[in-house]
Amino acid sequence: MKKHIRPKIFITNDDGYNSHGITVLIEELKKIGDVLCIAPASEQSGMSHAITFSKPLKMECMHQEDGFSLYKLNGTPVDCVKMGLDKFYKEQNPDLIVSGINHGSNATICAVYSGTVAAAREGAINNIPSIAFSSLDFSSSANYTPWKPYINTICSQVLQKGIPSGVFLNVNFPVQTNSKGMRVCKQAEGVWVEEFERRVDPHKREYFWLTGQFNNFTPNDSNTDEWLLANNYVSIVPLRVENTDNETIQSVSFLNS
Amino acid sequence: MKKHIRPKIFITNDDGYNSHGITVLIEELKKIGDVLCIAPASEQSGMSHAITFSKPLKMECMHQEDGFSLYKLNGTPVDCVKMGLDKFYKEQNPDLIVSGINHGSNATICAVYSGTVAAAREGAINNIPSIAFSSLDFSSSANYTPWKPYINTICSQVLQKGIPSGVFLNVNFPVQTNSKGMRVCKQAEGVWVEEFERRVDPHKREYFWLTGQFNNFTPNDSNTDEWLLANNYVSIVPLRVENTDNETIQSVSFLNS
Repeated sequence: MKKHIRPKIFITNDDGYNSHGITVLIEELKKIGDVLCIAPASEQSGMSHAITFSKPLKMECMHQEDGFSLYKLNGTPVDCVKMGLDKFYKEQNPDLIVSGINHGSNATICAVYSGTVAAAREGAINNIPSIAFSSLDFSSSANYTPWKPYINTICSQVLQKGIPSGVFLNVNFPVQTNSKGMRVCKQAEGVWVEEFERRVDPHKREYFWLTGQFNNFTPNDSNTDEWLLANNYVSIVPLRVENTDNETIQSVSFLNS
Repeated sequence: MKKHIRPKIFITNDDGYNSHGITVLIEELKKIGDVLCIAPASEQSGMSHAITFSKPLKMECMHQEDGFSLYKLNGTPVDCVKMGLDKFYKEQNPDLIVSGINHGSNATICAVYSGTVAAAREGAINNIPSIAFSSLDFSSSANYTPWKPYINTICSQVLQKGIPSGVFLNVNFPVQTNSKGMRVCKQAEGVWVEEFERRVDPHKREYFWLTGQFNNFTPNDSNTDEWLLANNYVSIVPLRVENTDNETIQSVSFLNS
């Protein structure tokens, strides 16, 4: 009987179905719910909220056991969420959507570019409590085991108490694994200043490779994700899905005609 | 002397550098400023805020005349904005970033998935007044000429009066070209309900094609983009770049530990 009240948890990421980060996430969340994982067949970092409608998608079951299924899909993280909702949860949405653990920071404005964060945003658009997890340690063999209790606590608490509609959580883990605790905070304001590095290929044609530096506008604000992560805290930022800025409706009313 | 006070306008889109929509936009904006256009070499619809950092980008100048340059880039719309800011506006940002005219609606939640809208969002992240234009008539030979006076008015007014920081404008044109006027309004609330159509390929393997229907939660609200477009108005929605939901910082404070 117990099985029927276990929460239904959907998992995806942007690093691919067989990455280290998603494996750790699956291990922990199988303890608290029935898990369906549909994740990209290949790396989709930086894909943001992209969707695939100009070409078909193929999906393959990679593993199946009692209370856990794993599929790979040759699409984006948001495609994975949409596929899950259409093919597996048509009658009833999952209780929780969880994305990650991303190999690399998705703090501050990075959230806008991230496929991992986009999957959680897609959950919020569908009114499902959703959480993105990322680690500042981006190495493919990073030690994410210390984050398991944090993941368990955050997901269990959210399952119990919910998240307001139109909002999702963006969680980042610091580089050091002996964290001081976790804090709900705001996103640091800032911008990536890009430098496209110019190179010349073996055929003498120029090409450019994207690189850049984050310019933090509020480096000393201890209530921001960047500050907390630098000071060895786990940061939790509630992000709202982009929407109308009502104040601006008034301030640009000169455009009504 | 007049030339030196002409505004600098950057143009991009997601349908590609040689699409009909961007050509109409360029024609009109050359009248009011010096135009640099860097646009995708191929269609990038549905690419949202994706960026390319795992592979190099190539850029080619397709046209050059006094006050106007056109480049194609094998990247996403947001890559095009970033390339423009790094390689052409390092000393001083453009006065305006304009994206479109997109062939197809980017009203309501479609804005989240759109590459055209993402380019304007990237402008707002960089604190540059930015506008996305889209038409509900998605045919590649659609008649966009009637929208030229609207584009001129909106861009001229924004150049003169600005847009609040962190906000950008999402403009959609209705199907009928005899519009009743334009209205600043809010984004209709709703969600795309997806159906992945299952098919079988010639090799007997199944594949899925994304399709879906928009479910409008507020169909009778005359202050929304969907209602206004259906009633033959041009809709202008001020969107804010996704950011912290401050109220939720309080309501999920149970996560602090």
